[in-house]
Amino acid sequence: MFVAFLGTGGSVPTARRSTASILVGRGGDRMLFDCGEGTQRQLQRSLGLVHLDQIYLTHFHADHFLGLPGLLKTYDLGGREKPLVIHGPRGLRELLESLDRVLGRSRFPIELVELEPGDELARDGYAVRTFPVEHRTRALGYALAEDERPGRFDAEEAQRLGVAEGPAWGALQRGEEVAGSDGPVRPADVMGESRPGRTVVISGDTAPCLATAEASRGAQLLVHDASFAEEESQRAAETGHSTARQAAALAREAGVDLLALVHISSRYHVKTVLEEARTEFEGAFAPRDFDLVEIPFPERGEPRVIENGARERGSGEPTLAESGK
Amino acid sequence: MFVAFLGTGGSVPTARRSTASILVGRGGDRMLFDCGEGTQRQLQRSLGLVHLDQIYLTHFHADHFLGLPGLLKTYDLGGREKPLVIHGPRGLRELLESLDRVLGRSRFPIELVELEPGDELARDGYAVRTFPVEHRTRALGYALAEDERPGRFDAEEAQRLGVAEGPAWGALQRGEEVAGSDGPVRPADVMGESRPGRTVVISGDTAPCLATAEASRGAQLLVHDASFAEEESQRAAETGHSTARQAAALAREAGVDLLALVHISSRYHVKTVLEEARTEFEGAFAPRDFDLVEIPFPERGEPRVIENGARERGSGEPTLAESGK
Repeated sequence: MFVAFLGTGGSVPTARRSTASILVGRGGDRMLFDCGEGTQRQLQRSLGLVHLDQIYLTHFHADHFLGLPGLLKTYDLGGREKPLVIHGPRGLRELLESLDRVLGRSRFPIELVELEPGDELARDGYAVRTFPVEHRTRALGYALAEDERPGRFDAEEAQRLGVAEGPAWGALQRGEEVAGSDGPVRPADVMGESRPGRTVVISGDTAPCLATAEASRGAQLLVHDASFAEEESQRAAETGHSTARQAAALAREAGVDLLALVHISSRYHVKTVLEEARTEFEGAFAPRDFDLVEIPFPERGEPRVIENGARERGSGEPTLAESGK
Repeated sequence: MFVAFLGTGGSVPTARRSTASILVGRGGDRMLFDCGEGTQRQLQRSLGLVHLDQIYLTHFHADHFLGLPGLLKTYDLGGREKPLVIHGPRGLRELLESLDRVLGRSRFPIELVELEPGDELARDGYAVRTFPVEHRTRALGYALAEDERPGRFDAEEAQRLGVAEGPAWGALQRGEEVAGSDGPVRPADVMGESRPGRTVVISGDTAPCLATAEASRGAQLLVHDASFAEEESQRAAETGHSTARQAAALAREAGVDLLALVHISSRYHVKTVLEEARTEFEGAFAPRDFDLVEIPFPERGEPRVIENGARERGSGEPTLAESGK
């Protein structure tokens, strides 16, 4: 599983930072969380123009969705036929209808799913859950949580109990009892404890809130609003944002492995803001655009930050057609 | 006068090319022609976030205006108070109203000016003229044409005719008759012939058409649609676009100094398309994003292409706040 930071900027982009956009890859699934202006080019400049099938919007402020019309248009011009599902808080339909009036309808099917806090979308091997955040507008955080995986199968023990390799091994792993040389063998006799899946949480823009902490309990990665430095905590509260240090305190309490601070206002030195966060939680970092976090299964180690990883992994090199002059 | 190419791509951006956006600078004036998605970042990455006061849209296809909402939002968040005038064909009001419904209104004054083909906007020292182009939708080309400048003042001749340096010289240059040592001295006695101003023409998306050729007569720079290679001239005609060679033939006939080919489809090698154009007109080139054309007064030489000039000229280096990690 990986998380690619396509846009790490605040409400206003900068020369270095595009507005909000995060791509999560798990197996063959590619999910985009928020879609600020320029998201399609951030994809083209790194992983390539992925044909996403799931998009999730946290809320409907301009810096979180202005890249959507262009992306849909580009898919359309490319002859896309594959359906696309766009999720967001209540109001999503109205937003897309307004955009349709400006742009015209896409020819490929787009399904709109309006979500409430606490909704859970079951996928193959994981679920996407929403939780309520506090941003002075209808806003959702998202937790992508993998299902528990079955424990490790002890082949030697199975053989010792007289269960030979073959269909009986599969039955045990599916949770069924089978016959051994010395009586019935139960799954618990040969299977280790079930292993936790991975969890990634994306807060979107929000003041620090309990729902985020609860959704993040034991998560491998929390991506959290860190709009302000501590000196402006009052302003953060007024605007429904967090200081980097508040985000870090929340991450420490929730016991996450890694905290990615995003949406840092361009008025600050990122370094200063990050130092404030690290006084609370050593696992805080501030991704730049195109950084990537690789998340192994928990038993295989900690999440790893790969600087510029989304470019290295991608097809972001100019094509022949582009490089000629 | 300079023309900075901020977005040279076709309908779909690429890793290297943003969608349509051209900035023209003349004296203190900064005019933006079209505003594709990501224009604000293209500015930030080169000249800096210029506080434009004039924007001109050629037509209302997505790749020519999707950068407008984000740019307006960014101005608004930056506390802009200076008015902004946005020009475009009929339909501009409706477009902006639809965007307002999505984004909310800006707090700084925005004036919308709907233009008809043949309209002329007089400015201080130049005019912006519209002409009708052929793009299967209501679309305008724009010619920015400087006023004629008065001829050179011959100071020696004025002195010989007995007009001493001082207010009388100014009067002559304003076109008034003054007294000399040997009777009245008329402006024509001491002023050379009036000198032509500079003209820059932007076609927007269009099939080759007479109106563009007429507007471009003797222009220093023509920026023209070159969406297709010659092998797809049929497709170009059907979609209201031009082949690079058609653009070049038009530029040669109009007698322009320099032809910038833009909107080249990403399916081609730019080099191939450019070679086709050069068989018709040697003065054709294909700007990349951030290239800049410097246009001196005609008597001082030809327009000059400065590769990456918009970045060199700009404040596009990351600020301290951005460069820290």
